[in-house]
Amino acid sequence: MATEVKSLNEECGIFGVWNDSQAALRTYFGLHSLQHRGQEGAGIVACNDAGTLVGHKGIGLLADVFDRPEYLNQLIGKSAIGHVRYGTAGSRGIENIQPLQFHFLSGDVALAHNGNLTNAVSLRKKLEQNGAIFQSNSDTEVLIQLVARQSEASFEDRLKAGLKQICGGFAYLLLTDEAMYAALDPNGFRPLVIGQLESGSYVVTSETCALDVVGAKFVRDVHPGELIKIDDSGYRISKYTNQTQLSICSMEYIYFARPDSNIYGVNVHMARQRMGNELAKENNIDVDMVVGVPNSSLSAAAGVAAQLQVPNEMGLIKNQYSTRTFIQPIKELREQGVKMKLSAVKAVVAGKKIALVDDSIVRGTTSQYIVKLLKEAGAKSVHLMISSPPLKYPCFYGIDIEKTRDLMAANLTVAQMCQQIGADSLHFLSLPGLVKAIGLKQTAPNEGLCVAYFNGDYPTSLYDYEAGFETPKTAGEYELSATMKPVS
Amino acid sequence: MATEVKSLNEECGIFGVWNDSQAALRTYFGLHSLQHRGQEGAGIVACNDAGTLVGHKGIGLLADVFDRPEYLNQLIGKSAIGHVRYGTAGSRGIENIQPLQFHFLSGDVALAHNGNLTNAVSLRKKLEQNGAIFQSNSDTEVLIQLVARQSEASFEDRLKAGLKQICGGFAYLLLTDEAMYAALDPNGFRPLVIGQLESGSYVVTSETCALDVVGAKFVRDVHPGELIKIDDSGYRISKYTNQTQLSICSMEYIYFARPDSNIYGVNVHMARQRMGNELAKENNIDVDMVVGVPNSSLSAAAGVAAQLQVPNEMGLIKNQYSTRTFIQPIKELREQGVKMKLSAVKAVVAGKKIALVDDSIVRGTTSQYIVKLLKEAGAKSVHLMISSPPLKYPCFYGIDIEKTRDLMAANLTVAQMCQQIGADSLHFLSLPGLVKAIGLKQTAPNEGLCVAYFNGDYPTSLYDYEAGFETPKTAGEYELSATMKPVS
Amino acid sequence: MATEVKSLNEECGIFGVWNDSQAALRTYFGLHSLQHRGQEGAGIVACNDAGTLVGHKGIGLLADVFDRPEYLNQLIGKSAIGHVRYGTAGSRGIENIQPLQFHFLSGDVALAHNGNLTNAVSLRKKLEQNGAIFQSNSDTEVLIQLVARQSEASFEDRLKAGLKQICGGFAYLLLTDEAMYAALDPNGFRPLVIGQLESGSYVVTSETCALDVVGAKFVRDVHPGELIKIDDSGYRISKYTNQTQLSICSMEYIYFARPDSNIYGVNVHMARQRMGNELAKENNIDVDMVVGVPNSSLSAAAGVAAQLQVPNEMGLIKNQYSTRTFIQPIKELREQGVKMKLSAVKAVVAGKKIALVDDSIVRGTTSQYIVKLLKEAGAKSVHLMISSPPLKYPCFYGIDIEKTRDLMAANLTVAQMCQQIGADSLHFLSLPGLVKAIGLKQTAPNEGLCVAYFNGDYPTSLYDYEAGFETPKTAGEYELSATMKPVS
Amino acid sequence: MATEVKSLNEECGIFGVWNDSQAALRTYFGLHSLQHRGQEGAGIVACNDAGTLVGHKGIGLLADVFDRPEYLNQLIGKSAIGHVRYGTAGSRGIENIQPLQFHFLSGDVALAHNGNLTNAVSLRKKLEQNGAIFQSNSDTEVLIQLVARQSEASFEDRLKAGLKQICGGFAYLLLTDEAMYAALDPNGFRPLVIGQLESGSYVVTSETCALDVVGAKFVRDVHPGELIKIDDSGYRISKYTNQTQLSICSMEYIYFARPDSNIYGVNVHMARQRMGNELAKENNIDVDMVVGVPNSSLSAAAGVAAQLQVPNEMGLIKNQYSTRTFIQPIKELREQGVKMKLSAVKAVVAGKKIALVDDSIVRGTTSQYIVKLLKEAGAKSVHLMISSPPLKYPCFYGIDIEKTRDLMAANLTVAQMCQQIGADSLHFLSLPGLVKAIGLKQTAPNEGLCVAYFNGDYPTSLYDYEAGFETPKTAGEYELSATMKPVS
Repeated sequence: MATEVKSLNEECGIFGVWNDSQAALRTYFGLHSLQHRGQEGAGIVACNDAGTLVGHKGIGLLADVFDRPEYLNQLIGKSAIGHVRYGTAGSRGIENIQPLQFHFLSGDVALAHNGNLTNAVSLRKKLEQNGAIFQSNSDTEVLIQLVARQSEASFEDRLKAGLKQICGGFAYLLLTDEAMYAALDPNGFRPLVIGQLESGSYVVTSETCALDVVGAKFVRDVHPGELIKIDDSGYRISKYTNQTQLSICSMEYIYFARPDSNIYGVNVHMARQRMGNELAKENNIDVDMVVGVPNSSLSAAAGVAAQLQVPNEMGLIKNQYSTRTFIQPIKELREQGVKMKLSAVKAVVAGKKIALVDDSIVRGTTSQYIVKLLKEAGAKSVHLMISSPPLKYPCFYGIDIEKTRDLMAANLTVAQMCQQIGADSLHFLSLPGLVKAIGLKQTAPNEGLCVAYFNGDYPTSLYDYEAGFETPKTAGEYELSATMKPVS
Repeated sequence: MATEVKSLNEECGIFGVWNDSQAALRTYFGLHSLQHRGQEGAGIVACNDAGTLVGHKGIGLLADVFDRPEYLNQLIGKSAIGHVRYGTAGSRGIENIQPLQFHFLSGDVALAHNGNLTNAVSLRKKLEQNGAIFQSNSDTEVLIQLVARQSEASFEDRLKAGLKQICGGFAYLLLTDEAMYAALDPNGFRPLVIGQLESGSYVVTSETCALDVVGAKFVRDVHPGELIKIDDSGYRISKYTNQTQLSICSMEYIYFARPDSNIYGVNVHMARQRMGNELAKENNIDVDMVVGVPNSSLSAAAGVAAQLQVPNEMGLIKNQYSTRTFIQPIKELREQGVKMKLSAVKAVVAGKKIALVDDSIVRGTTSQYIVKLLKEAGAKSVHLMISSPPLKYPCFYGIDIEKTRDLMAANLTVAQMCQQIGADSLHFLSLPGLVKAIGLKQTAPNEGLCVAYFNGDYPTSLYDYEAGFETPKTAGEYELSATMKPVS
Repeated sequence: MATEVKSLNEECGIFGVWNDSQAALRTYFGLHSLQHRGQEGAGIVACNDAGTLVGHKGIGLLADVFDRPEYLNQLIGKSAIGHVRYGTAGSRGIENIQPLQFHFLSGDVALAHNGNLTNAVSLRKKLEQNGAIFQSNSDTEVLIQLVARQSEASFEDRLKAGLKQICGGFAYLLLTDEAMYAALDPNGFRPLVIGQLESGSYVVTSETCALDVVGAKFVRDVHPGELIKIDDSGYRISKYTNQTQLSICSMEYIYFARPDSNIYGVNVHMARQRMGNELAKENNIDVDMVVGVPNSSLSAAAGVAAQLQVPNEMGLIKNQYSTRTFIQPIKELREQGVKMKLSAVKAVVAGKKIALVDDSIVRGTTSQYIVKLLKEAGAKSVHLMISSPPLKYPCFYGIDIEKTRDLMAANLTVAQMCQQIGADSLHFLSLPGLVKAIGLKQTAPNEGLCVAYFNGDYPTSLYDYEAGFETPKTAGEYELSATMKPVS
Repeated sequence: MATEVKSLNEECGIFGVWNDSQAALRTYFGLHSLQHRGQEGAGIVACNDAGTLVGHKGIGLLADVFDRPEYLNQLIGKSAIGHVRYGTAGSRGIENIQPLQFHFLSGDVALAHNGNLTNAVSLRKKLEQNGAIFQSNSDTEVLIQLVARQSEASFEDRLKAGLKQICGGFAYLLLTDEAMYAALDPNGFRPLVIGQLESGSYVVTSETCALDVVGAKFVRDVHPGELIKIDDSGYRISKYTNQTQLSICSMEYIYFARPDSNIYGVNVHMARQRMGNELAKENNIDVDMVVGVPNSSLSAAAGVAAQLQVPNEMGLIKNQYSTRTFIQPIKELREQGVKMKLSAVKAVVAGKKIALVDDSIVRGTTSQYIVKLLKEAGAKSVHLMISSPPLKYPCFYGIDIEKTRDLMAANLTVAQMCQQIGADSLHFLSLPGLVKAIGLKQTAPNEGLCVAYFNGDYPTSLYDYEAGFETPKTAGEYELSATMKPVS
């Protein structure tokens, strides 16, 4: 029985509220605004007046998991935490859907997690050797197993002792009948914010967009190494470690977070727009119009268009209705199947030189398809502009970026990529351009961005992932632009 | 027992294919691209080799109705028609979901309909007096009841005789084991197009976007008064009446059709962009940026911004995940509930003078809410620009525009509307501006647009609706712009 | 397209109540006690105070169709009718589930039917030639189509005129907003009874067991040719024809009705027990014990055991949990699959001479299997005793007895049947024995039983079925007993 | 947070098979025949060729949990264990449905349990103090937590060490990728048998009826204190303790097991029949007939009737269709609701002196209702005969017998019970009569029955239940018969 060293807790959204008469409903609304962070599963656990945790969770979108009124109505109680989850194949069992619940004779604990631990496998091995039993495949559980084995008197102290032992990227929410806890890793890889309702009660969640939706005002970002305890007396911040260094994940700004969210004071939409500006400054190409890939690249496209001073056109339409389907179309219909998601507007693009703006290239297959779609719709030329640097290194802190070998830019030069995608030219934003565009205000000493996906400069040791780490074939390649080789 | 004179077949999408090895699957893909035309119900009926019609239909989105593989797999056969439906309250029973199926000892007929008949109630009364029994509340059935009572020898002739007796707006698809029929009303109120697959087989559907999705090339629009018969020998066009006059519904261009569709040669997105141009030409207001209401008004917003030469900004975000929910939030959470759909990007709009572009105002409540949302996010001023004229008259041909009394512009002057919505100013596109923006090519004598919603000039008699027709209070009011009265 | 002359409305249960604050719930309870009459579909239609009929129906058992509280809760109104249905393959579409609902501008009509019409196909042909359109494959609809074409002033008179034109076996319930109607065919093939609740309100249903369950007391059987009208003024009986002759279906007594029901004053359990008595009188065989096939043959087994003066033993156990399953077991597991329903009690039957009592033999495969089961469990010999005569002729009045060619007794002599089933001997009750055992009191002139399944003596013309009628090969065979031929 | 000392694993059925190409399907069939042992939840876990455990489980009947083919089809593998579960209120969460699955880096373990541990709470407290985390409320988990903390080298040795520490009644099945284990408590409270398929592969299950259904032949009962290990080399029996003493639960014979099962060589149906014989010998009452409460008391009723030499009549009918319903009938309909389950056959019981036979009296409310039902149907007198002694003491070994205070016989004398139930007389079987009727063959030294429910003579210490134990008020009362006091 082999055990794959594979993270399972990537790309999630969390929301929690303490002391709110509509705790579960508020959490439902909050999670709905975080649905972009995970669509594979969802769950909410509430703590009722008797101190019992009651939860409901399931596979699928939030609205599908809570598709009967009784599922939400039964979650009675003044505090609740919730989770939306992105799961990779093999980890989709119901036992991996969060919040996880742990039963103790002294009371229950619920736990929701966004991130990925880098030393989970070795910790788990040690714990199992000492008799620990895991209910899920998820590394999330490691924390609670550690907490259960600490000797400190208070739950908070045991929790801090546990947090000190785990490494990687994590934003945790824990709920007991006495308090809600929020903890962030020492590098602050994942966003986590505190908000306050009009009633005075506190909310903790992954993105500020969830605060807006539930009518909470922003209080502050949670900082690296902090543990927040929220109970009936308000919130209290302490640090479980002082060895911190901000390395907020740049992919949150590039494509993951919602445009209306602010992370460390920087609005995501505007950061993307500036990425587009910088990209166009670096590549002043001659086109008739800019077309962004909806919806994630529309901000960057606006930035490109403004800088190039050509129109930003709606050349691609995204179908707004669910395309989740069991249908495995026969070969001749497969491409039509893909067309369910994206359509070209022929009347817009026909005969035009187009700057197609996308936020990133992972495997390159989608880019290849979109270029083909535009050319079939009559585009004269398609110049692909990517509003981030070439993605060559995987993420071990909670974003599901494929293994090195699966990343197109780790295997091919920009010229080869351009050729394979079929674009007339291909242009990436430079790393300095990206950092400038995000423009993080330096509000704490030594703080900054994690850009390891582009340059391999991981802010922490990789621990369990060290051994399996693969260096990209293109590690020494620094070109950012290429033009299609004419067929000779 | 009162019988309300209320149309029930409004706002639908239809798709049919003949002689295709993947008829039901093709129809599924086609309907998916028409989902914007109706989200209340969906159905597909296929004709198998034994000549039997087999169908599956249900309440909800297409993907929900066909949420088990067997539902589609059982629809074996080389021809199929399908329907997505918008239903008003009271008509949501499964018996009203189309395609309707009718059983005859001589073979079955399936029928799908987009439109609204103006003489259905009087026809139905007459038919019932002669023993007809209706299986649905839908007026769609009137046609088949008429057909069943004709004495002509062939089904096609009986169908033509039936078509001659119905009035209003209609695009019908009928499926028998011998042929598929498509029929359009004498005014061509609703769009209907013919396409051809690579295999040579024919497709008929509501919008060209469905042709693109299934890989069919556009053949031609169906013209007013035409009956198309498609069978194994190809397609054949005949006219069931010569008293035709094109009056294609202008609302299809304004907000109803998908941007990538073309109707009578005019691309919808570009028509909307021109509406924005015209609107800005007519109202050269001083603003910092344009913000369109996503997704339907983004095309018009681009047009406004281009003309005003100010940036077109992403000041509003639409949550792309389903907000269908059973949740009836308590009073204090209701507004948060609405926020599930739309969020303002504070970083974009704070401190700015904004031209907010929307396609139309029906009751005005949504506009009021969006203006409030932007102001709460810090907008300095919000100028609401509507890319169509004031909507004062109901539609009787298939668009679900409320009764006269429910239309804001039928009851209030533009100044009163501006005040109630809370906008700093309010501007409508003029009717000539609209007609110019759509710019329909005159390819047939006497053809044109239906703009009755704005000026009450209905192209046909209203028949059963005549008696209940209400003239708008503002019938004589022609102002198109107003500014908020300062609080004295 | 061939049209098979096949009845589709066989073996059903109906229940209706007028003027009851809990009409739909009462109907639910009533139908539950009639579930043995049909398990393929169920439905309830209620008439609310506004005179609108609202229904819910679906495929499967009653408890599965009404598996959400809202399905029943929405059926508000003081009157309701309901239906449980047995459907044959090909007729299982939702459109065939009853009560059927018909929409008229002047008000709706719901209709539930137990029985089978013998002239439905020819009536339907005639109706369709005159423009009638059928919503189902069911012959049930013929009545309402006839009613719609009558010229009489009142609904009741039109209904009577319609009833006069249909032939066969039928018990109809109709609900309008003005009254509930119950009608029985001129031969009274199917049982139908009137009951009265403590509140004074009236109930009409298929069997008296449903009266007991809803707390209603028995008022009277509905008689052949009667039309009952129940409205706020009570119930009123009229006759739509005087050409009546009671021919109550003997199969209701033999196996179809519930043991605690009384039909024309005769309790079903006691009739079956007397069939067992008569069977044993006619066949005084030497056995150690009697074993009845659970549950339908336990009454007859008791009668056999009492007469033979040997113990009536529980040698077979029926699994009381649902065996409905999608599982198509592989060949080697198929027999285990069958064992899900019935098990032999080895400790009881091992080494014993057994009189196995069953109520009838249709195809003979089940009998063959049960005999094998008992022998594998160690039975010394198995003597199969059938508490009815050999079943040679199909039923055209509403019991789903297979075509002549499918009936084992129509094709084989009793000796051949015994051999094929593998029983040590085989014994049938004689026809005079059956009639004596049922012992119908002669309360009206000329009344009696239909025993056509045994002697081909159909009480009416077969109309549409005449042409396809097949005479059994064993028509002239009158033996009732046989012993297994020893292997030479 | 109080922790109730309440068993949660009562009344279950387990089935496991090793090395069978149809392991999951075989388990499905086996569990179906054990459905009477638990209807609240069901699950199956299979071990696939890669050594991974895959499971599906859910709330409800087996057929409801496995209502889609994919649920069973995905359980690929040559070994499987399954569980049907009876859960008490508060323990119905999905996390308590078995088999439980535990994830170790070295491989997974699945566990299914029938029984109840008496020292689970104290063990759990100790384990949690040492860092153990429980995934369920179920005491079942205690075993695996103990196993995880043993230091022995092999899983089997660690399992034995764990089994030595738990007390109470338990039959465990465990599945790993290397073997299937079955373990029985030192008193053999619960039945557990080994069977062999035709292929030679082995099956372990709760009752012999499951062997018959899957086509396996009986090999032997599992004996107290045994651990069975089944792997590809066959089965091997060892003892984890020598301090054993057979105390098989008498309630299995009285009402819990299926009539066609044999436990320690005694057929359940025949034991019940003998209980009826003994009961009638002890109480030679004068009645016209015997009526058994279907289905559980029909065996005993046959025994009573044979001994009294009066007819055994079908005076009560049990509805064979599911009565599971969400319906909370209004007060006036509640009794009709109860009638959904049981009906009296008036024609049988009217005017008769009846011996009503039931297997036991718990709270007495059902008996009261049935007596009333018979009297309303016209019974002249109803004499209630119970085929077991008065139930005064709760069970702590796995049968869900209520707390002392809830047991009617623990609070009232037989005379008081008779009065409250409304029977004309009430008669219980004596304890010696029960033991004689079961007639367990003494195949091992010191073996025997547990009859603590009647005399409080528990075969083991009660451990965690000791403190809360309540002595029945009627502890010193030995009367077994009473007659209704005439109203003076």
